Amino acid sequence: MPLPRRGRWPHSGLRVSHGPVTTFARLWDDLLPIGRDGTTGGYRRYAWTSTDAALREWFAGQARARGLELFVDRAGNQWAWWGDPDATAGVVLGSHLDSVPDGGAFDGPLGVVSAFAAVDALRATGRQPSRPIGVVNFTDEEGARFGVACTGSRLITGALAPDDGLALRDADGTALGEAIGVDPHHVGRDDEALRRIAVFVELHIEQGRALINDGHPVGIGEAIWPHGRWRAELPGEANHAGTTALDDRRDPVLALAELVQQTRAAARRHDALATCGKLRVEPNAVNAIASHATAWIDARGADEARVAAVIDELDAGVRAQGGALVRESWTATTPFTAAVIDQLKTALGDVPSLATGAGHDAGVLATAGIPSAMLFVRNPTGVSHSPAEHADPDDCLAGVAALETVLESLV
Amino acid sequence: MPLPRRGRWPHSGLRVSHGPVTTFARLWDDLLPIGRDGTTGGYRRYAWTSTDAALREWFAGQARARGLELFVDRAGNQWAWWGDPDATAGVVLGSHLDSVPDGGAFDGPLGVVSAFAAVDALRATGRQPSRPIGVVNFTDEEGARFGVACTGSRLITGALAPDDGLALRDADGTALGEAIGVDPHHVGRDDEALRRIAVFVELHIEQGRALINDGHPVGIGEAIWPHGRWRAELPGEANHAGTTALDDRRDPVLALAELVQQTRAAARRHDALATCGKLRVEPNAVNAIASHATAWIDARGADEARVAAVIDELDAGVRAQGGALVRESWTATTPFTAAVIDQLKTALGDVPSLATGAGHDAGVLATAGIPSAMLFVRNPTGVSHSPAEHADPDDCLAGVAALETVLESLV
Repeated sequence: MPLPRRGRWPHSGLRVSHGPVTTFARLWDDLLPIGRDGTTGGYRRYAWTSTDAALREWFAGQARARGLELFVDRAGNQWAWWGDPDATAGVVLGSHLDSVPDGGAFDGPLGVVSAFAAVDALRATGRQPSRPIGVVNFTDEEGARFGVACTGSRLITGALAPDDGLALRDADGTALGEAIGVDPHHVGRDDEALRRIAVFVELHIEQGRALINDGHPVGIGEAIWPHGRWRAELPGEANHAGTTALDDRRDPVLALAELVQQTRAAARRHDALATCGKLRVEPNAVNAIASHATAWIDARGADEARVAAVIDELDAGVRAQGGALVRESWTATTPFTAAVIDQLKTALGDVPSLATGAGHDAGVLATAGIPSAMLFVRNPTGVSHSPAEHADPDDCLAGVAALETVLESLV
Repeated sequence: MPLPRRGRWPHSGLRVSHGPVTTFARLWDDLLPIGRDGTTGGYRRYAWTSTDAALREWFAGQARARGLELFVDRAGNQWAWWGDPDATAGVVLGSHLDSVPDGGAFDGPLGVVSAFAAVDALRATGRQPSRPIGVVNFTDEEGARFGVACTGSRLITGALAPDDGLALRDADGTALGEAIGVDPHHVGRDDEALRRIAVFVELHIEQGRALINDGHPVGIGEAIWPHGRWRAELPGEANHAGTTALDDRRDPVLALAELVQQTRAAARRHDALATCGKLRVEPNAVNAIASHATAWIDARGADEARVAAVIDELDAGVRAQGGALVRESWTATTPFTAAVIDQLKTALGDVPSLATGAGHDAGVLATAGIPSAMLFVRNPTGVSHSPAEHADPDDCLAGVAALETVLESLV
């Protein structure tokens, strides 16, 4: 597939007249305004909101325009099928369309848009695939609204029990079971949807800098790092900020500050990642010494031992402050399916492999035994989950070309 | 006045049958349930809410029960007058009934209850005062709902312009001008209310430990420390917590942690008080490196130079982190009226004097030229703005006795 000149992006001015490039630009430009915050340029595309409905309508429209059959599974994930996947299981491409708060344009949508563009490119060759091809839009991958990531893939694989999933509540107290756009009584493991998948390949923007260092536009994902979330409860004693002597204070914000610094130090010492991105202070008033502080720790690493080493240090530090560190979630190393990784390597040749620190629907499916792997597209800044997230047009089109090559190799 | 045995408190079991003790216990027990949180035992008595309406009805009921004339001024402060203050200016006692979030039972109400009890004690002597006596309930002293303290006294003295005050908004977006229980068009400086005050004496629970150290149940307030609020804006770069290498991060939560520690260190170095009690992190998500952090600093000290020294240090620290420190408010040292302090010393004899780090309506009035001073009642833990705030019954009754003595001396 010929690639256009390097351009500005989004709204790259990709106006070349031949197939996949035009397709990609048109798909991208259509999707770009939906859920965009005019002030920050970031996205607020949360599951089962009116913005999400617009994204789902966009997806259904793309399926219609291509004569693909739209299928909505028991958790509300959307599938667009070319060919009959009930006769023969097929090759599925895709990702998700939702975002974190003030997220970037690429995380999720790049995989869905690239999937449609790759299907178009394959069709443009005139070749008739030997088995069905699907494009998927997994719902609620980021978990921005209900607090749990990948609910769409977790519900259909049974990794998340329906009762637990439907009971999740958003900040306004609305339960997922009330918001979800499918029959909540029918939510649960969906063997009908899963049986149709022979292979799932999720293309995604890279959320780090491995491909910059390697000098490649596209790489193959081999595994998802082990990762977890912990909550540190740091007790204190409420008091008046203007009248309480320093020595009479039990200020949990000081304990919190120490924990934040320990988190960074422990991550560095053990060559892992650990972050305090969420804090809560009570009562959070300017003239009140806080009565209680809470900090959430996100910790990940290339192997489980180094994550455990970080958490052991933090646990000791928090306990020394009279607090408690509580594990909220834990996911062991998630390898993608070895056979699929081999197929991708065979199809794409000299392409680097990388592991990722972020969770993905492809990881949920691989864990459930559905053959799955990922492709990553180079991110020139490494920034993600931010309006500054970016991928160059050339690299995006290289991703489409890689997906098309994979399709040609697999169907 | 005879004092009862030391008892538990609140609901002290003060059931002695003679005048002021019974009065005090009855007043206290009546007021105690209003706005109390059943879980924490703290109070949520915010201005112009239904809880506040119950407190105001309690105050009006106490005025009625004593045949005092109720007057509501242009800002909604309540005054109960014994005698005609338009003929001769009078001696005013009182404080406020509102609270901070999850505040204690004593901060404010102790001054109002003690004022009524002192009036009853004076009446029980059969003595006819030579000039009017008033009891006041200043509205919205804590500023918990609309963010600005002492709006009631600031509005009637003109320290807060009506348009500025009425435009203040609570967390739900309701303006004070919409919530206020008096005609908003009539809000403003109230010379009618101010002319009636010859002397204002505000009794308040101590919010520190000076009286413990001095071994006295009651002390005379001489001044309010200089104090101010600053806001530190700490910029960062949003990114994915699971994929961004430590060296590629610009995490403002680390800058925030350093600022919290610098704040404590600077306060100690300059023998002042400085506190980070309010923090905000954006987007405040577990798996996101924050894009921005904000911290509020409350700083006070015995003189202005030491507060300035603290702030200069923090300003340098924040600027070194690429942030900015913005002053939100500043109040210079507020001396109470020297003549009133002398009158209190004459009346009460061997009683210690102290300065306070907290703002009070008496400070607003003194600054406006209304002769004003304060009495403080010992706080055995020094804790305030907390459900743990406490004063012993004996000390509360010593406060009532002191107020009664002051009244006898002044009327």
